[in-house]
Amino acid sequence: MAIVKPSLARGTRDFGPELMAKRKYIFNILESAFRKYGFLPFETPAMENLSTLTGKYGEEGDRLIFKILNSGDYLGEVSLQQFETAKADGSRSFTGLVSEKALRYDLTVPFARFVAMNRGSLNFPFKRYQMQPVWRADRPQKGRYREFYQCDADVIGSTSLQHEAELIALYVEAFQKLGLRNFTVRVNNRKFFAPIAQKLGLSGGEQALATPLDKLDKVGAEVVKAELLEAGASTTALDGFFELLAQSSSPNTLAQLCGWLGEEAAALPKAEMEQVWQLLEALQVDTSKVRFDMTLARGLDYYTGTIVEVVTHEVAMGSIGGGGRYDKLTGIFGVDGLSGVGVSFGAERIMDVMEQLQLFPGHIYHACDVLVFHFSESESLHAAAVVARLRAAGVGVEWYSEGNKLKKAFAYAEAKHIPYLAIIGEEEAKTDTVALKNLAAGTQEIMASSQLSQQFIRA
Amino acid sequence: MAIVKPSLARGTRDFGPELMAKRKYIFNILESAFRKYGFLPFETPAMENLSTLTGKYGEEGDRLIFKILNSGDYLGEVSLQQFETAKADGSRSFTGLVSEKALRYDLTVPFARFVAMNRGSLNFPFKRYQMQPVWRADRPQKGRYREFYQCDADVIGSTSLQHEAELIALYVEAFQKLGLRNFTVRVNNRKFFAPIAQKLGLSGGEQALATPLDKLDKVGAEVVKAELLEAGASTTALDGFFELLAQSSSPNTLAQLCGWLGEEAAALPKAEMEQVWQLLEALQVDTSKVRFDMTLARGLDYYTGTIVEVVTHEVAMGSIGGGGRYDKLTGIFGVDGLSGVGVSFGAERIMDVMEQLQLFPGHIYHACDVLVFHFSESESLHAAAVVARLRAAGVGVEWYSEGNKLKKAFAYAEAKHIPYLAIIGEEEAKTDTVALKNLAAGTQEIMASSQLSQQFIRA
Repeated sequence: MAIVKPSLARGTRDFGPELMAKRKYIFNILESAFRKYGFLPFETPAMENLSTLTGKYGEEGDRLIFKILNSGDYLGEVSLQQFETAKADGSRSFTGLVSEKALRYDLTVPFARFVAMNRGSLNFPFKRYQMQPVWRADRPQKGRYREFYQCDADVIGSTSLQHEAELIALYVEAFQKLGLRNFTVRVNNRKFFAPIAQKLGLSGGEQALATPLDKLDKVGAEVVKAELLEAGASTTALDGFFELLAQSSSPNTLAQLCGWLGEEAAALPKAEMEQVWQLLEALQVDTSKVRFDMTLARGLDYYTGTIVEVVTHEVAMGSIGGGGRYDKLTGIFGVDGLSGVGVSFGAERIMDVMEQLQLFPGHIYHACDVLVFHFSESESLHAAAVVARLRAAGVGVEWYSEGNKLKKAFAYAEAKHIPYLAIIGEEEAKTDTVALKNLAAGTQEIMASSQLSQQFIRA
Repeated sequence: MAIVKPSLARGTRDFGPELMAKRKYIFNILESAFRKYGFLPFETPAMENLSTLTGKYGEEGDRLIFKILNSGDYLGEVSLQQFETAKADGSRSFTGLVSEKALRYDLTVPFARFVAMNRGSLNFPFKRYQMQPVWRADRPQKGRYREFYQCDADVIGSTSLQHEAELIALYVEAFQKLGLRNFTVRVNNRKFFAPIAQKLGLSGGEQALATPLDKLDKVGAEVVKAELLEAGASTTALDGFFELLAQSSSPNTLAQLCGWLGEEAAALPKAEMEQVWQLLEALQVDTSKVRFDMTLARGLDYYTGTIVEVVTHEVAMGSIGGGGRYDKLTGIFGVDGLSGVGVSFGAERIMDVMEQLQLFPGHIYHACDVLVFHFSESESLHAAAVVARLRAAGVGVEWYSEGNKLKKAFAYAEAKHIPYLAIIGEEEAKTDTVALKNLAAGTQEIMASSQLSQQFIRA
């Protein structure tokens, strides 16, 4: 067997204990929040039929899907002619010949596939949360990986606006539990977009507004304005619209927008926004964290109602969450009439934000409660008894195995963030005691083995 | 966009809420046990460089590894000649040309790759646990999937037999926590194999014994005997050996085996077995669950010392766990001198066993504590206040969104295994009360909204 110098696949990373501790801390908080709101856990396989994924993410997306090579003699049916055609078209026509499966690219499409397949047996509204990795053949760069986690919660099979309000409440609760203080849930409604597009005179309908508007933060008002002009907007209407946009942080933007659009055109989205707001207040949500924001567009074209996005003001970072109402998602699999609404937590960015704000509590790195150390072979069985007694009491214990150098055991405990060291020498073995050292405080106390577990029982 | 009738990739499955509840129940118990013994969480990416995996699992294994097609114009460098050669060799020579990455096939090799890459910065002995899916292009059949979970715990960088004893203790504790009563941890030591092979007169050394012996349970003694004869064993020695095997359930097999081998030849493995046993007793392990078993071989050729396997006697099932000591695993990546020992839990089989023995407690399916139901729109805000108050107290609440049919809400709660229904009608809204229905007991009680959360606070 040839020895290869080992390396990671490009754009991937190992999750060592520290990174795992951080991710678990975040995921546990999110999971508790999901469960508290009645969402059930759910997972799909890493691989899907290629046909399930193709065409759902646009042309660029199709390119970035990782395809799995068929097993066995996969070239058996491929002709020379097909090979030569593929050589000429940049391998494009070859993929379907040698690959039938692909890796999950997001959580939404496989979930829609599941709902379409199981609609007869599901208990609607079906509320699920899903926290799984996805894979994209993007060019790797700092902070962008080819394998990363997505965390989604969706309600499917209900049109009730209660869910919009509850998902916003969930956002506020979860981000507060994670320790974020200064964040905003931006809220808009896609139903404003068709009347705005009409008033502007855009021929391409609502998506002709959504796509340029989605870039506003990045490219600035002038560029968006120019694009909208090109798309057929009238100058006067555009000026009025951008005047509104410029004031979009004022508290009465909603009223201003509705005034500009006219009561009739704005009636439906306005009523929805107001009902969501009323429900948020009834749910005692801290509405200082929620803001109507007419500049919010969300790029994806499947949104049809309320849309949301979460931004933090404590560090420079794109959105750390987003989502909205969609009416036709399972339609791609031939199942109509199932409206859904969902939110996503940007796990990787949340980890970066929490890192920068130092929001991870120190205890998450503790491997266990105590490291038991014995000086020589003759105390080995006494040490084992101490270990056994602690574990029987539910205490997390590691038993040091690497000889009689106390210094090494200290270093080992420190590297694993184990807060206590229980030291057993000749004297301790004889008197059935241990010397318990608190590593952070540097204090040490001799105590009976039988008393030891009480030091670690959580209040 | 063409509409495809959705289906799962062959050999894969969705994990709906019930399956997830079961898997989480098992994984939480395993994870608690791992942590209690000082193991740290660890994960590797789903994809590895193909060169990392190739040649580690034998020829059959190489075939079963899922390869990922390169992105972009992956045929760009492939010549017509190469295509034709591959057509002739069953596509074998093509794979390396169009694929550089592959899916994780087990947890062991990627872990060895990680240790080899990071040996300079790890705190040895490095104890990690890992619970992740692996993928194999096996022919799917009942109970065999192409995606399934493995759960491993390993200690690497220590030769101490404490770890053997602790891992056996961990096995006993974890399986008991899962609710299994009648199981055995079979223990043997690979160091017996070279002297046995020598005494039998096998020319092929210890693996010439291990490979046939590993099949003993499946094919029976006569077949194994015939194979060993063919491999050069002497008839007399073989008779003696099979006499021992036939008595291998007696309590003094170890002494008999050592007697047959001779004290000198048996000295090292005997001393190791005895020390492990002494440590098990000192660790207060229920040794009625542990048995020396000279018929245990473990097929994999990388084991070098203690080997273990767990079998349950309550249902017919292969082993539900296994592992052992290995000395050269990181050697495949050019890093020698790191001895390790590890155990694996057969997650899928454990789930089957627990299913058959009905060991899953009913509460694991509860979506949340209570479903709040209001009869009409006018009670909506009161219902929201009840929901908010419960959640503020930490209670898991779902707020029913699908109208005023109590019967539908009942059915919904039952399908989600929600144990309580909090009903709010006109009267309740007026008096700030709720009617709390216990669905299992069929009882109902009117209580003040302010008292409600106390019903759900865990003792």
